[in-house]
Amino acid sequence: MDLKKLVRTVPDFPKKGIMFRDITTILQDPDGLHESICQLQEAIKDIDYDVIVGPESRGFIFGVPLAFAEHKGFVPVRKPGKLPAAVYSQEYDLEYGTATLELHKDALKPGQKVLVADDLLATGGTAEAIIKLIEQTGAKVVGFTFVVELTDLGGRERLKDYEVRTLVQYEGE
Amino acid sequence: MDLKKLVRTVPDFPKKGIMFRDITTILQDPDGLHESICQLQEAIKDIDYDVIVGPESRGFIFGVPLAFAEHKGFVPVRKPGKLPAAVYSQEYDLEYGTATLELHKDALKPGQKVLVADDLLATGGTAEAIIKLIEQTGAKVVGFTFVVELTDLGGRERLKDYEVRTLVQYEGE
Repeated sequence: MDLKKLVRTVPDFPKKGIMFRDITTILQDPDGLHESICQLQEAIKDIDYDVIVGPESRGFIFGVPLAFAEHKGFVPVRKPGKLPAAVYSQEYDLEYGTATLELHKDALKPGQKVLVADDLLATGGTAEAIIKLIEQTGAKVVGFTFVVELTDLGGRERLKDYEVRTLVQYEGE
Repeated sequence: MDLKKLVRTVPDFPKKGIMFRDITTILQDPDGLHESICQLQEAIKDIDYDVIVGPESRGFIFGVPLAFAEHKGFVPVRKPGKLPAAVYSQEYDLEYGTATLELHKDALKPGQKVLVADDLLATGGTAEAIIKLIEQTGAKVVGFTFVVELTDLGGRERLKDYEVRTLVQYEGE
């Protein structure tokens, strides 16, 4: 199944000139959802990892079913103030301003091998913040998997020290 | 497996006097995540439905793997400004102020039978907003499933016209 055919492109969202790659059209298709998780499993099958981490909220969409299918645990990275127990925090730069992500301090153990799952790889800025957050726990990031990759935005280069697996690629904005 | 043993209770979060039921401790346990999805499947096995809808962002956590396991589609309900195509909106009351949820207009079809999945049933306010949102598409809500139910907060009574299935119950706040 060609998953790319199920991605909807919405022009000028969230602002003029951006071609937004919408994965909700994969999800709402029973075969599309099933196939996307099976393809992620195939893409990562040679990566040795213990647990999947995914960021709020679209990282939950593919990360949790992938963890379920792989019989692994899933650890959420969330926006500030959402996780109830003690957390590590990591600030990172956005196009305008900064944002912060949090991770439960006791959710990962030193030495655990972590696979990070998210829907889309663009500049890799969020991915880099997640690496720093995970390293605070003593766990180690071994790889990343994304459904969609925007290949011109430099994310893969920024993550060159890690395994990076993506299912659908787009060149240009 | 007794899932309740995997729920962590964090006192005084997000404010004094609230006993927060934290499901991240289910998720990070490989057997806990697997069992929670299998128990949800068992709980809804007699409900005839076509598609699963779940609200951002904790509704994604259990809703997408449940849809994957059931080979159904998943449709996200999101906060304003996140869904790229044309949406229906529904405002609802919170303890202080109001909030709005959105749903892609073309994500559901008239007559489709919808099962709504979320992590926690409390007052049922969000659930009621989701019903109104789904009804705007002409689809029909047939049931709800939640991992945790706070039985003293009236949610089940508010959803008495629907099938409601929950895995772990807590009395009192």
